Amino acid sequence: MFKESNSRSILKTISWRTLATITTAILVFIFTGKWQIALAIGGIEVVIKIFLYYLHERAWNHVEYGKKTYQPAVLWFIGLSGAGKSTISEAVYKHMKKKGYKVEHLDGDVVRNIFPKTGFSREERDRHIRRVGFLASRLEHNGVFVLASFISPYKESRDFVRGICNNFKEIYISTPLEVCEQRDPKGLYAKARSGEIKNFTGIDDPFEAPDNPELAIDTTNTSVEEAVNKVMKLIS
Amino acid sequence: MFKESNSRSILKTISWRTLATITTAILVFIFTGKWQIALAIGGIEVVIKIFLYYLHERAWNHVEYGKKTYQPAVLWFIGLSGAGKSTISEAVYKHMKKKGYKVEHLDGDVVRNIFPKTGFSREERDRHIRRVGFLASRLEHNGVFVLASFISPYKESRDFVRGICNNFKEIYISTPLEVCEQRDPKGLYAKARSGEIKNFTGIDDPFEAPDNPELAIDTTNTSVEEAVNKVMKLIS
Repeated sequence: MFKESNSRSILKTISWRTLATITTAILVFIFTGKWQIALAIGGIEVVIKIFLYYLHERAWNHVEYGKKTYQPAVLWFIGLSGAGKSTISEAVYKHMKKKGYKVEHLDGDVVRNIFPKTGFSREERDRHIRRVGFLASRLEHNGVFVLASFISPYKESRDFVRGICNNFKEIYISTPLEVCEQRDPKGLYAKARSGEIKNFTGIDDPFEAPDNPELAIDTTNTSVEEAVNKVMKLIS
Repeated sequence: MFKESNSRSILKTISWRTLATITTAILVFIFTGKWQIALAIGGIEVVIKIFLYYLHERAWNHVEYGKKTYQPAVLWFIGLSGAGKSTISEAVYKHMKKKGYKVEHLDGDVVRNIFPKTGFSREERDRHIRRVGFLASRLEHNGVFVLASFISPYKESRDFVRGICNNFKEIYISTPLEVCEQRDPKGLYAKARSGEIKNFTGIDDPFEAPDNPELAIDTTNTSVEEAVNKVMKLIS
C-alpha cells in the first residue's frame, strides 16, 4: 500500500507549474528580447493553464476510450479429480498476473496441505468449502480476483459460497469420469477402485453436477489456451 | 478495481500537450503579433516540456516529503472473553477506514456465527485459529490490513499464524480475569461458573498468555481512544 499525501501533490503541482512557466517565459524572452512580454505571458499562462488543466481533466472524464472498470470476481472451478481444474486455474492465474490483475489462487490440494486434518466426509467437505468460500468473499470484497479450484461436489456448499460473494462464477470443468479415471494423474482412482481410499468423488461419493454453471469446459477436446480464453471472456 | 489503458494515457498526454502549447502560441501571438515567433516558441516548447516533465518526475522521486509506504499488517487481538478485544478492534477498524486504509475486521463472534458448527475443544479452537490466520495472511498478502479479534488461547496456534503472515502483531488485551468476570457482558462467566458452559477460557480451559506481545493493553485503566492511539503507533 502506497500513498502520496495531499500536500505533496499540491507542492508537486506548484513546482511543475513554476518550472513550466519559467521555461515559457525564457523562450519568449529569447525570441522577442523583451522581458516585459516574457513576464506578462508567463503570468497569464499560470492562471490560464491551471484553469485549462482542470477543464481538460473534466472533458476526459466523459471520454470512455481506454477506461476499464473491473468488478472483481470469484471464479470457482469445480469438477472431478483429474478433470483439469488445477491446470486451467493455474494457467488463468499466470495470465491474469501478467495482465496486472490482483488475483489469488486457492487450490484444493494446496489448502488441504496447510490443513492436513480436513477430512472427506460429507460434513467436513461441506464445512471446508464454506470456509474457503468465506476467505474468497473477503478477498473479493477487498478488490482481489479469486480463482478457487476445489472438487466442491455438493450443490448446497456451492450455493452458500455463491450467496456470500458479490460476483460468483461457477466454472464447471466437465471432463467425463471415464477420461479422468484414464488420466488418473495421482493414482487416486486406482486406489479408490481397490477400496484403499474411501469417499472418493465419482466412485463411492456423489458429484452433484451444476444445473447452470456460468461456464462449462470439457478438457477432453479443449486445450489449456482455449480454456484460458473462455474464462477471460467470462470476466471481461 | 479500475484501470486506465496505456493508449488512453498516451492520448491524454498528447491532447494536453497540444492544448497547452496552442495556448502558449496564441499568447505569444497576442503579445508579439508575429505568428512565426508564436509557432517557433510552440514547437520548441513541445520538445522541451516533454523532456522537462520527465526530469521533474525523476527529481520528485528523490523527495521523501509526503511519501508514505504502508506495509500491511495482521493485528491479532487476543485476550479473555470480556477483555475488550472486539470494542478496541472495532474502534481501530473505524479509525483506519476513515483514514483510507484498506482494512478488514475479522471478529471471533461474527466468524463463529457464519460457521456455527465450530466447537470449543482444544483441537477445534486450534484449527479455527489456524484457518482464520490463513485467511488473514491471504488478505495481508494482497495489501489489506487485518484486525482479528479472537480469544486465541493457545500459543501454538498463534505461533502458526505468526509464521504464515509477513507482519504479524500480537496485541494482548490483558484485562485481568476478575475484571472480565465482573463485566460479564454476555453472561457467559456466570454460565461457565454454574457448569452450564464447558471449556470456557479462564474458568475450565487455559489461557496461555503471550510472553512477548508487540503490545499489551489493560482496559481496566485505558480508554478506547488511548487504546486506538497505541495500536496506530504500532503500525505507523
